[in-house]
Amino acid sequence: MTLTAAEVEAVIRAGVPMAEDIGFTVDETGDRGYARTRLVFSERLIRPGGTLSGPVQMALADASMYAAVMAAIGKVEMAVTSNLSINFLHKPAPSDLVGEATVLRMGRRIAFCEVRLLSGEGHQQQVVAHVTGSYALPHDR
Amino acid sequence: MTLTAAEVEAVIRAGVPMAEDIGFTVDETGDRGYARTRLVFSERLIRPGGTLSGPVQMALADASMYAAVMAAIGKVEMAVTSNLSINFLHKPAPSDLVGEATVLRMGRRIAFCEVRLLSGEGHQQQVVAHVTGSYALPHDR
Amino acid sequence: MTLTAAEVEAVIRAGVPMAEDIGFTVDETGDRGYARTRLVFSERLIRPGGTLSGPVQMALADASMYAAVMAAIGKVEMAVTSNLSINFLHKPAPSDLVGEATVLRMGRRIAFCEVRLLSGEGHQQQVVAHVTGSYALPHDR
Amino acid sequence: MTLTAAEVEAVIRAGVPMAEDIGFTVDETGDRGYARTRLVFSERLIRPGGTLSGPVQMALADASMYAAVMAAIGKVEMAVTSNLSINFLHKPAPSDLVGEATVLRMGRRIAFCEVRLLSGEGHQQQVVAHVTGSYALPHDR
Repeated sequence: MTLTAAEVEAVIRAGVPMAEDIGFTVDETGDRGYARTRLVFSERLIRPGGTLSGPVQMALADASMYAAVMAAIGKVEMAVTSNLSINFLHKPAPSDLVGEATVLRMGRRIAFCEVRLLSGEGHQQQVVAHVTGSYALPHDR
Repeated sequence: MTLTAAEVEAVIRAGVPMAEDIGFTVDETGDRGYARTRLVFSERLIRPGGTLSGPVQMALADASMYAAVMAAIGKVEMAVTSNLSINFLHKPAPSDLVGEATVLRMGRRIAFCEVRLLSGEGHQQQVVAHVTGSYALPHDR
Repeated sequence: MTLTAAEVEAVIRAGVPMAEDIGFTVDETGDRGYARTRLVFSERLIRPGGTLSGPVQMALADASMYAAVMAAIGKVEMAVTSNLSINFLHKPAPSDLVGEATVLRMGRRIAFCEVRLLSGEGHQQQVVAHVTGSYALPHDR
Repeated sequence: MTLTAAEVEAVIRAGVPMAEDIGFTVDETGDRGYARTRLVFSERLIRPGGTLSGPVQMALADASMYAAVMAAIGKVEMAVTSNLSINFLHKPAPSDLVGEATVLRMGRRIAFCEVRLLSGEGHQQQVVAHVTGSYALPHDR
């Protein structure tokens, strides 16, 4: 059974140490394997003069892939990231960071995902990082 | 001028928000572009029954690449990660995680690096994640 | 000055050894950095019982990125692939393979691209490979 | 049963369309998952003024991973590349291109490999491309 956005968020917050640190929320899900997520901006995540760091963006991307997988196939606590590849395209604005994650191929054992991280408001919004990655799924799902 | 391990560690701890969170240290550097780094194990970084998360491993890998770059060319505060690709090979042990980072090609504008993350003690030690990535270097170095 | 689809195809066929081998065509371009390309199916590209090989798909993806870059910024003969990452999602059908390439970020020195390789006809068409990659641009463009 | 270098070469030449085109040989194998391969230089693979193209290097890398996998676990005709990521570091010399492929993790279903492509003779030899990739293994091996 697939999960709602709120249910996906609860599973991830309970299981992924960094999700709470980065103020992770799940705003929308789609049962074909889609999730729109959010990192709520906080001064705590940056240094003076700085911006959201690479590792914070990677943490959001990883959690977003997990959210898209669970949106499609339900709660899979034993799913683990198999690989993640991120390209940083632009410096994020000092604002919330939004993740748009899609499962491009749901195999029996591997889900291959794409994530776009979006920063900024309105027509200023742009893709600041592009991510691909795979989740290894448990055998007995 | 190249930097010592202690100097590299100080620059990274001052500039990368997550470095302090993960107990990041630089144990050794080589001026051809090498750094051996460490994430000091802490219960705080895991959840009950869990292990070091993917984002924590990515944070160590990113900081290790940065350390290897500075070991080769000195302090470059404006260097930024251009891309990072990580493959998770084994579940880390509940112990320190060691990063072995090497610059495979130091270009004028891009440094291409490889990192192996090692976990476990003695002959139990194994590569738990393999990482490649690029750092974009400032123009005026 | 940007180039037409026919002009882009001519530059690539003249400069990339494998383009002619794989029956490479450029069907459409867009000046924001878009190209739709095609590998014309031929028995010569497969073995009995086989399908289009991985290297053939990589060759199409590489040429497609190059086409999208030239669609945006005109003829750049000295552009070279800096990296390419491909995920194979499904076995291609015994038919033409279509490349949809987009420049996600056009920097001064690096163009970051995404390519989807599509196989099959009509509503049977599906993404068989997902590709990201960077082209290094010449200094004096 | 593991295979000799000559046996690995014969399987790949029989099954991979491009192997013969690029003059692919297997020079050495190791049963822990290692293969040293070679693309014999030929003017036919380049254009006037050119060098070995990216797709030719990718074809060698892909075949080298396959060779390393078979060196470890024997003939697996149904193994397919799951993903391949290549970073081009230097322009190859007009000489043979050597592949050094290692299986970093042999799982039940996925073999994760690293390949270094080496070009040039003697102490001029350098790594011109660095490759990581995964092979999906058949279920019934």
